[in-house]
Amino acid sequence: MNCNVVKGTRDFLPSQMNKRNYIFSTIEKVYKAHGFVQIETPALESLSTLMGKYGEEGDKLLYKVLNSGDFLDEIDFANLETQDYKKLSNRISEKGLRYDLTVPFARFVVAHRNDITFPFKRYQIQPVWRADRPQKGRYREFYQCDCDIIGSNSLLNEVELLQIIDEVFSFLNLKVQIKLNNRKILAAIAQMIGQDDKLTDITVCIDKLDKIGFKAVCSELKERGLNEQDIKTIEPILHLEGSAQNKISNLKEVFSQIEIGQKGLEELESVFFYVKTLNLKTPIDFDITLARGLNYYTGAIVEVKCEETVMGSITGGGRYDNLTGIFGLKDVSGVGISFGADRIYDCLETLERFPKDIDLNTQVVFLNFGDKEVSQCLLSATELRGKDVLVEVYPESAKLQKQMKYANDKHVPYVVMIGQRELEAGQAVVKNMVSGEQSNVVLAELTDYICQALGA
Amino acid sequence: MNCNVVKGTRDFLPSQMNKRNYIFSTIEKVYKAHGFVQIETPALESLSTLMGKYGEEGDKLLYKVLNSGDFLDEIDFANLETQDYKKLSNRISEKGLRYDLTVPFARFVVAHRNDITFPFKRYQIQPVWRADRPQKGRYREFYQCDCDIIGSNSLLNEVELLQIIDEVFSFLNLKVQIKLNNRKILAAIAQMIGQDDKLTDITVCIDKLDKIGFKAVCSELKERGLNEQDIKTIEPILHLEGSAQNKISNLKEVFSQIEIGQKGLEELESVFFYVKTLNLKTPIDFDITLARGLNYYTGAIVEVKCEETVMGSITGGGRYDNLTGIFGLKDVSGVGISFGADRIYDCLETLERFPKDIDLNTQVVFLNFGDKEVSQCLLSATELRGKDVLVEVYPESAKLQKQMKYANDKHVPYVVMIGQRELEAGQAVVKNMVSGEQSNVVLAELTDYICQALGA
Repeated sequence: MNCNVVKGTRDFLPSQMNKRNYIFSTIEKVYKAHGFVQIETPALESLSTLMGKYGEEGDKLLYKVLNSGDFLDEIDFANLETQDYKKLSNRISEKGLRYDLTVPFARFVVAHRNDITFPFKRYQIQPVWRADRPQKGRYREFYQCDCDIIGSNSLLNEVELLQIIDEVFSFLNLKVQIKLNNRKILAAIAQMIGQDDKLTDITVCIDKLDKIGFKAVCSELKERGLNEQDIKTIEPILHLEGSAQNKISNLKEVFSQIEIGQKGLEELESVFFYVKTLNLKTPIDFDITLARGLNYYTGAIVEVKCEETVMGSITGGGRYDNLTGIFGLKDVSGVGISFGADRIYDCLETLERFPKDIDLNTQVVFLNFGDKEVSQCLLSATELRGKDVLVEVYPESAKLQKQMKYANDKHVPYVVMIGQRELEAGQAVVKNMVSGEQSNVVLAELTDYICQALGA
Repeated sequence: MNCNVVKGTRDFLPSQMNKRNYIFSTIEKVYKAHGFVQIETPALESLSTLMGKYGEEGDKLLYKVLNSGDFLDEIDFANLETQDYKKLSNRISEKGLRYDLTVPFARFVVAHRNDITFPFKRYQIQPVWRADRPQKGRYREFYQCDCDIIGSNSLLNEVELLQIIDEVFSFLNLKVQIKLNNRKILAAIAQMIGQDDKLTDITVCIDKLDKIGFKAVCSELKERGLNEQDIKTIEPILHLEGSAQNKISNLKEVFSQIEIGQKGLEELESVFFYVKTLNLKTPIDFDITLARGLNYYTGAIVEVKCEETVMGSITGGGRYDNLTGIFGLKDVSGVGISFGADRIYDCLETLERFPKDIDLNTQVVFLNFGDKEVSQCLLSATELRGKDVLVEVYPESAKLQKQMKYANDKHVPYVVMIGQRELEAGQAVVKNMVSGEQSNVVLAELTDYICQALGA
């Protein structure tokens, strides 16, 4: 009998859970500090909610769940061979697994619009599923950690998200760089060369600049229908260097006749102004080549990279002006970010940045010397738990060596032994598992003794 | 565009999340205090892992996930009509959604047997899915909160689980009753009338005693093949009353010739002995009619009912001697319990036992009087967050009334106002939202002032 997990999914052992929980709780702590509240949505959503929201490629990566019961009742078998797979799978499946947290959140906002207070600041930490080809660092089931502010146009929301990124990575002790751009600036570039309709093509190419270089980007732009003159117009923009303020000043001239460009620059300038006020630790770079794949972004877009190890984007997000529109609620602007917990995990693991005591679970193990002695252990253990100490009583009077090995494997700092002799003397032997030191302690003072030892 | 959830699934609003997290964290706190460590398993499992583990009825309730890609490639269309649905669905689907946490845990133990220390004490809090007909209190997606000790036969494990139940419901302030029985005693009853093979039939009938009464149970037993004499033999057992010790003494005589019965009574007696030592608050009743549906139980079985409101079993569990056997690892005994978070939620809601301050999220909102004043708010808010205060700055300089409504809706205890006049005077106005009292505070002392006010 096979005991493997499904390809692309993972079991998490206790030590991995400790590390994952450390990341989740750090993110959650910062979200809460900024007044975000938690929601959850179901793993199962109607396919009508999910389909068409993630592009054609996304539709293919949706996990579809079979209708229960006799789902073939209505299939026309006579014509089955002429039907394509897509139609048949739509017939036999009406539900799918959540693909991200953003679309379910948009549905949630519309469904509960009368129960929530706007601006609504929510966070959500749940798994998502994608029928992707598994690779190193790419899983079919993985967690997303999102926060969004919906129902407010204010750029202070963008500022708050940058502050959150800064605080999370400070707590995690990871040096990162934030890349900031604005979709309106990308739109202005397309408009400048009179190719508004090619916005996506252009941004997809520009996005590759730091990977493939300027020359290759140019030939791709040509392939997508830009001419020499177009590229000449764009070129100086892509070569802009210097500080964010410098780039902004230059672009103000370049976009002097393009309203959407001016608007994008104003937004950026305003965000940089507040960020400076807050004196964030994380450097923020205005990166005009940053595009981000998702088409629903309309304003600020942001991505975070680790400066200490090679890893793709570990956090990203942006502003969307009409995400709830697809569910019938118009003119509600939102902005959000998502921390990539799995990649952050890999960074912290590579750099050995997880706290040293992260695997500390049980603090005291009472060894078991038999039925008579164990009753006292149960009582003393209960008393210690009353003082918030994490305590186990070894369940069997196994060989001492085996019990000690158990305590060692669990990295337990203290072991308590109450054998027949100790019981008669009203004492316990406390062993410090790090120093090896043993002390005799009167039973009535055992709780105080251990609490003090753990506090030291 | 529909914005509803799938039938039988739920969105959780922030106030519901607060209540759910209260239950989860209470359970988790107790698990950790007893040295249990957390694991997670994937939502998606191979159907071969899941099928046949939950009985025929369970197989029908499994959610099956469509294979991605051209899953119909290997279907023989010519013969399709003669194939039944079950076969076809097996062809087009290889994965399913987790139905409970116990079978995935058994798989986990076998897969990672070389990476874990036995006895292995794990807890797991994750959702499960069942394609059941939705009803009040019955969902298609719901959380289970399990803990198990695997790799130890000791009855101290049963005792620890009873202690955990006692502690969890004490923390939750719910009066409950624990019902305890042992599968070996049920086996002894079947053996006593020479009907070992009818164990399941008999237990299913006996289980209904408090619902349908003795007479109806007798006629059901007859339907299932027991004769008058058999029933006469069983009758006095079902009528046993008095204390647990009383029932055990009586049964010792009844089962004097039945080894498995003697063993079951010994186990029960031993558990009751230790429970008495620990002086648990929760009454524990030896209920010989308690059967529990799952066939993998082999020793102690336990169920918990709320004494203050009408609700089915809110926690249950038992010992299983060979659950990992199905994945190829023999002779590993385990015992575990599962808290039913949804039902516990309903009990606490009905009895209004959730803590009064459960919806307290944001503690301070800074009102927004415009671009100039808001910079100071951002700085003061950041300083307060450094002291672990949960703080928001209202993102827009909206009408004062709207901003106040926001703070009110979020039950925020303090609002801070820094308008033009305050900014010039280097002051802030702090409003206590409960008393309505307003105080002028020097900006440099704002953090201390609020920390003190919140502490009071």
